[in-house]
Amino acid sequence: MNPVAELLQPEVQELIREKRFTELREALHLVAPADVADILAGLDPAETAAGFRVLQHDDAARVFSYLDSEKQEALIKALGAETTVAIVEEMRPDDRVRLLDELPAEVAQRIVASLSPEERKLTQAILGYPHGTVGRIMTPDYIRIRPDWTIAQALAEVRRQGRDAETINVLYVVDNEGRLIDDMRLRQVLLADPAQTVESLMTRSFISLKADQDQEQAVHAMARYDRIALPVVDSRGLLVGIVTADDVADVAEEETTEDIQKLGGMEALDDPYITVPILELVRKRITWLAALFIGEMATATAMSGFEEEIQRAAVLATFVPLIVSSGGNSGSQATSLIIRSLAIGELTLADWWRVMRRELACGALLGAGLGCIGIVRVNVWGWMGWFKKKAETGAGFTPESLLAQSHFELLGITIGVAVLGVVLWGTVIGSMLPFVLKRLHLDPATSSAPFVATLVDVVGVLIYFWTAVVILRGTLL
Amino acid sequence: MNPVAELLQPEVQELIREKRFTELREALHLVAPADVADILAGLDPAETAAGFRVLQHDDAARVFSYLDSEKQEALIKALGAETTVAIVEEMRPDDRVRLLDELPAEVAQRIVASLSPEERKLTQAILGYPHGTVGRIMTPDYIRIRPDWTIAQALAEVRRQGRDAETINVLYVVDNEGRLIDDMRLRQVLLADPAQTVESLMTRSFISLKADQDQEQAVHAMARYDRIALPVVDSRGLLVGIVTADDVADVAEEETTEDIQKLGGMEALDDPYITVPILELVRKRITWLAALFIGEMATATAMSGFEEEIQRAAVLATFVPLIVSSGGNSGSQATSLIIRSLAIGELTLADWWRVMRRELACGALLGAGLGCIGIVRVNVWGWMGWFKKKAETGAGFTPESLLAQSHFELLGITIGVAVLGVVLWGTVIGSMLPFVLKRLHLDPATSSAPFVATLVDVVGVLIYFWTAVVILRGTLL
Repeated sequence: MNPVAELLQPEVQELIREKRFTELREALHLVAPADVADILAGLDPAETAAGFRVLQHDDAARVFSYLDSEKQEALIKALGAETTVAIVEEMRPDDRVRLLDELPAEVAQRIVASLSPEERKLTQAILGYPHGTVGRIMTPDYIRIRPDWTIAQALAEVRRQGRDAETINVLYVVDNEGRLIDDMRLRQVLLADPAQTVESLMTRSFISLKADQDQEQAVHAMARYDRIALPVVDSRGLLVGIVTADDVADVAEEETTEDIQKLGGMEALDDPYITVPILELVRKRITWLAALFIGEMATATAMSGFEEEIQRAAVLATFVPLIVSSGGNSGSQATSLIIRSLAIGELTLADWWRVMRRELACGALLGAGLGCIGIVRVNVWGWMGWFKKKAETGAGFTPESLLAQSHFELLGITIGVAVLGVVLWGTVIGSMLPFVLKRLHLDPATSSAPFVATLVDVVGVLIYFWTAVVILRGTLL
Repeated sequence: MNPVAELLQPEVQELIREKRFTELREALHLVAPADVADILAGLDPAETAAGFRVLQHDDAARVFSYLDSEKQEALIKALGAETTVAIVEEMRPDDRVRLLDELPAEVAQRIVASLSPEERKLTQAILGYPHGTVGRIMTPDYIRIRPDWTIAQALAEVRRQGRDAETINVLYVVDNEGRLIDDMRLRQVLLADPAQTVESLMTRSFISLKADQDQEQAVHAMARYDRIALPVVDSRGLLVGIVTADDVADVAEEETTEDIQKLGGMEALDDPYITVPILELVRKRITWLAALFIGEMATATAMSGFEEEIQRAAVLATFVPLIVSSGGNSGSQATSLIIRSLAIGELTLADWWRVMRRELACGALLGAGLGCIGIVRVNVWGWMGWFKKKAETGAGFTPESLLAQSHFELLGITIGVAVLGVVLWGTVIGSMLPFVLKRLHLDPATSSAPFVATLVDVVGVLIYFWTAVVILRGTLL
């Protein structure tokens, strides 16, 4: 819980228990709605409802928007139909739609039907746009002015509409048909001569979003143009709403969460981790896990082709996890880098060849580095074994012991070469797979670390054993 | 490149080549600065500089802020000291500091020294806060009013300061010492009676940030309270600046990028992927890769303890990558889920036991699911081998073939049990490691998919071979 909320909760609880409701209302009016939501959500259900009834209607609506969907549903039951509708009526249309989306369909329908005709119309307009579109997160509360008005008329309109509007930093100029023709900062209007017309200030250059665009486009446009609100038009260019920075930030956070979950090798969750039921969580995870498990079975098939070699030199098998994991790890680095760069627009499809060249260079250097560590490891291990044996048996250098030592040197070279090959392969696969997926209009984030590791493992086993057969034939094999 | 920029670039190039500079200035004044930056950055350096000289000074400053640091440096060289200082003087203080941070120290110092005394003071105040603090991203352009003023006076101040202020949606009330005592929405002020005092509207409840707080706190506060700007105070409570939603969004994007890079198993990059030199890229990746490689060597040591078993039944070794990877994959899922939930505050340290219980349940179900697939695979494989042999040799059921078949059944059970154990282990490690790191005040995102996979692999090998020894003793082993 937030420290502010934590500090105030005992006091709020006391005021509720002692039924000092007037004091409570005044106190909570001064606390930020997000904190009031935290405080009330932490109380037991009856107290939460009691606290809610005390709030001023517009305060209640704002606090309600900050509760998570479980709490909202519980509270709707506790408050009864009449109070619920009064609160929902006061909510901002975009918050209201988010609530209705989460409620069971019949409850949502009942609430919509009970709204005032005006609010019902606004709500249904937003509900008419599909999930994930800009239209679904817009608000119809903004200030529209006309080009033939004077600045004084425009300011009067700001005063009239300002109470409801989400932001009054920007005014939107529409023509007779309601088509968006310009936007204007309030500061321009405040600084202008009141007798001037709006038209005389117009540049007719503005950035707008389309209501049926993907929400991700809103995130990118908002970041690119450093705006705190952008107007939304329908297919005919009619102004239908605005999206504000706070709603877009929520969308950006959700999309990043989805990307990270996909990168972890699973389907994205629809709700916060802790509220998703266990079986749903298993369902979202088992699909990819099973697919990867079945894919990884190819490593067993690949290795079974070398069963004879393994029987002859079991030591070969002991290095398999080391070698294949080095490919998986370098692939995981490459794919994370590229997926994120694609997501924030640092890279586009056209850059694939530039990336390929960079990653070939990186992969070769990384592979050579790890390969050297591998060679050192095998040789140190070999010599340690030799000294141990010498200490146990007391034997000095014998032709056999020297031969065994030279085998270790060859094994070291095998490991070094295989690691170089596997790391290079991992780097290339990890960096190119996101491009391939994007080219196929799939989400690059699907190219998760586990997915890349699985692709790399199968080929990694083959690279390793082929290298071993070539280098060790006639000695260990 | 952005479609708008792409469309306009040929025209801009033509105007520059034909030296129609007045037309160019007017045209570019109507285009969003982010797009102008894209257009000019796409031209050759001489044309970029020519285009820049044409821009109005305040336009030039805003466009300049949108260029990446390489382009900014090149342009500073091309434009010469005088023009550069004129542009930097017009930049918003927060954008200016970001530029100075990227420039070589001597160039930055020379520019700061050439600024007007007022702008120099503002710039140095921001530069005085350490990197990564709220003070470093704040802007001193905001509107401050006094409690004893009338609303009419406050509005006059809005008109006076409004030209420079980054946002005029919120006014900040300070006392005689400059201490922040309230904030007020412009709409409240616009709607109030001009003869009223500011004090009569005050609630004295406001949200503020401290200048020396971590920037991440600004991201969380902005998201929590749905604000587009927050005031920043120093340790004595004096108002020193505001941070705005667009700057905070940049911080949030950078932090997510760092998290994703760490999740991929590497150090976070300081610059965009494509601009980082190859050797720097290798350096950021090799540290973790080498550490993981050395850690993974323990799998070879673990497996070498079972060399005899592998020699007796090489088939055991062929399942090692399949089994250890199932642990790595389930661990990757768990760690991604938990890291993200911790990052966005859905989970706190106190939730660890709740998460543990959920993940034990998930891990058991996921492990059982994959284990069953493994059992089926081994048995199908066994029977296929049997039928193949039968077709080749023409032999029917013999005591030996039945015995071999029963071995496959036991091998299947071994694989099934081992997968269950390894997946459960991976899930628990993957979900608990982020909590452990956070408890130790380390970044949970360090618990990357490759890190978890490596931890799980070593124990995974042991789980597998121990299971095999127990179940297969006396038959295959």
